[in-house]
Amino acid sequence: MACVLQTLPCRKTVSLQRDKLGMQKYFRDAIDKMEGYAPGEQPRRAGGWIKLNTNENPYPPSPMAAKALNEADPAALRLYPDPECRELRKAIAGVYGLRMENVLVGNGSDDILTIATRCFVGEGETLSTLEPSYSLYPVLAAIQGAECRAVPLEKDFSLPADFAKNVSGSRMVFLARPNAPTGNSFPKDDVSKFCADFPGIVLIDEAYADFADDNCIDLVSEHLNVLICRTLSKSYSLAGLRLGFALGSEGLVSGMMKVKDSYNVGLLPQLIATAALGDREYLAEGVMKIRGTRESLSSALSGLGFDVVPSQANFIFASPPGGEAEKLYRDLKDSGILVRYFPGPATGRFVRISIGTGEQTRDLLATIQKMF
Amino acid sequence: MACVLQTLPCRKTVSLQRDKLGMQKYFRDAIDKMEGYAPGEQPRRAGGWIKLNTNENPYPPSPMAAKALNEADPAALRLYPDPECRELRKAIAGVYGLRMENVLVGNGSDDILTIATRCFVGEGETLSTLEPSYSLYPVLAAIQGAECRAVPLEKDFSLPADFAKNVSGSRMVFLARPNAPTGNSFPKDDVSKFCADFPGIVLIDEAYADFADDNCIDLVSEHLNVLICRTLSKSYSLAGLRLGFALGSEGLVSGMMKVKDSYNVGLLPQLIATAALGDREYLAEGVMKIRGTRESLSSALSGLGFDVVPSQANFIFASPPGGEAEKLYRDLKDSGILVRYFPGPATGRFVRISIGTGEQTRDLLATIQKMF
Repeated sequence: MACVLQTLPCRKTVSLQRDKLGMQKYFRDAIDKMEGYAPGEQPRRAGGWIKLNTNENPYPPSPMAAKALNEADPAALRLYPDPECRELRKAIAGVYGLRMENVLVGNGSDDILTIATRCFVGEGETLSTLEPSYSLYPVLAAIQGAECRAVPLEKDFSLPADFAKNVSGSRMVFLARPNAPTGNSFPKDDVSKFCADFPGIVLIDEAYADFADDNCIDLVSEHLNVLICRTLSKSYSLAGLRLGFALGSEGLVSGMMKVKDSYNVGLLPQLIATAALGDREYLAEGVMKIRGTRESLSSALSGLGFDVVPSQANFIFASPPGGEAEKLYRDLKDSGILVRYFPGPATGRFVRISIGTGEQTRDLLATIQKMF
Repeated sequence: MACVLQTLPCRKTVSLQRDKLGMQKYFRDAIDKMEGYAPGEQPRRAGGWIKLNTNENPYPPSPMAAKALNEADPAALRLYPDPECRELRKAIAGVYGLRMENVLVGNGSDDILTIATRCFVGEGETLSTLEPSYSLYPVLAAIQGAECRAVPLEKDFSLPADFAKNVSGSRMVFLARPNAPTGNSFPKDDVSKFCADFPGIVLIDEAYADFADDNCIDLVSEHLNVLICRTLSKSYSLAGLRLGFALGSEGLVSGMMKVKDSYNVGLLPQLIATAALGDREYLAEGVMKIRGTRESLSSALSGLGFDVVPSQANFIFASPPGGEAEKLYRDLKDSGILVRYFPGPATGRFVRISIGTGEQTRDLLATIQKMF
């Protein structure tokens, strides 16, 4: 410690060199070395774009959510929100047949992932995940000063048979199911068996599970070491609200409550999310529409010679004939359509396309048809 | 690392002992050992209480903020918010004559304090603060696995002369000015001199500075190692919104941007906070009212024999005749008035009373007059 501080320049020197280098001495080494997470492009000029790059829902949120927003009393904002988010947690517990004590809510599911990393993985310890997967996971490990072990998926993006062996010694595993950006899922039996055998925490990130054929919610009751992470950003069309939650055993949730910021979820997200969660019918209808569009887009692209990964999410991961995915990404952007491209050996032949409305999808297909 | 994992029980054992003890093996030692932060009471039944315990503003937020809330488009919530919060940061920069690059916004100022701790203090390193001060600071150090060095204030809650010597070797110092829960301030010259000499980060928590005679904003331009932390929870009457911000040199802000959750501030806080910050007149009027009430309450309590710490905040810290503060806290609660009591040698003779409306203050005084 004393050594670290002795390498800091004295204040006078720092004042003279107002550059990045001088500044870096203040940050922990782990922070200096890391790159931040790069979110998908959010075009600044409104309108004009067909925005299929950040897995947002093309449909508006439930009218119940809109009503909760419209009826919110501005004067109520002067008071702190409920730090325990009791009403919202009860609503979430009700949806999944669990108790409020099994639910932790966060400022988006990123907040949940951050809290979990801070709870379970210390400096120098190991957080494991898959490659490719959600690119935030290695960033969270880096911030913590932890090692991130990224186990490569098979060529078809399935779970490798030696996955359990490869993550041995980790304190926690982040497993996105369905996975992003690939969109496929992993056999539930394999995941369940892994959870039973793994001696640390398994966080199953189910951001896209409402669009899938099954989910792992019941594993929460079967395994003390399982956390399920969910978000209202995708299936509930509430990315702008920032609301995510974790489901887990009471011991995990109560420990994580100590680490979250006391008032991590504001009054408005508490009110609006509670209302949105109550509208099961609207959720089901929206999910059906998106699954339908997903299947027709997948078929059409396959018909055009694309290699389409079977998707269980609200996006598809598809490789164009010839594999020039970066060119396709740029050409689509030139045509006013934003999709997402992830460079790299495992992902560089693919683009990720969020499922839009029927009309947006027809426009997308018409544009692509002119190219291939 | 391998050693740590070998002490984890195998899954089967954990399944059999579904108790707190079995669960603790998953958490980092630092998390197991710590207590969470205890926020002030938020009474669940609405109405009935005169709530003077969590330093909320008794007046509603600006009509401009209310308008922004009422006019918010629910359909816009389907998209992610601007991860860089450009409009809001420009608005904040405009208020203080700084650039957007000097502003970091957070999900409440707790988010800012959390980000700063993660950026600047590693496991086993030292975060320093004062005692008594905001009780979240030691909790943030504990979560990080860092040491918290709490330097005792003088008996009159002034800064000790050997403060700089006592925090030597720390990576960061949290300095609340005005201080909480004591309400007094520290001479700005002393703070400025300390910032110039201290080789780590000085975070000056100005949560209450809008109610004070001066502030330390100009130190941001003078010292590369200074962060000013602000909140909209108190002077802007927006505790329920969750909006805090840091002002600092561009190098500090850009490094901290890597550590914040990408979308840490939702669309609604961005819109509503931007509107609230634009209404300078409303802010000034509200602050004047609260300062006026603070002075009359302080005088009245002094007249009743209370020892009242000179306050620069929206609360007062006062010791009743005889010093039986816990009894006063309980008696007031029995009368429907919530104030805050902090046990302990330095604080146990005092209660902290948030400044309410004129009417609430008259009721409070009438209740206290019957007691003394």
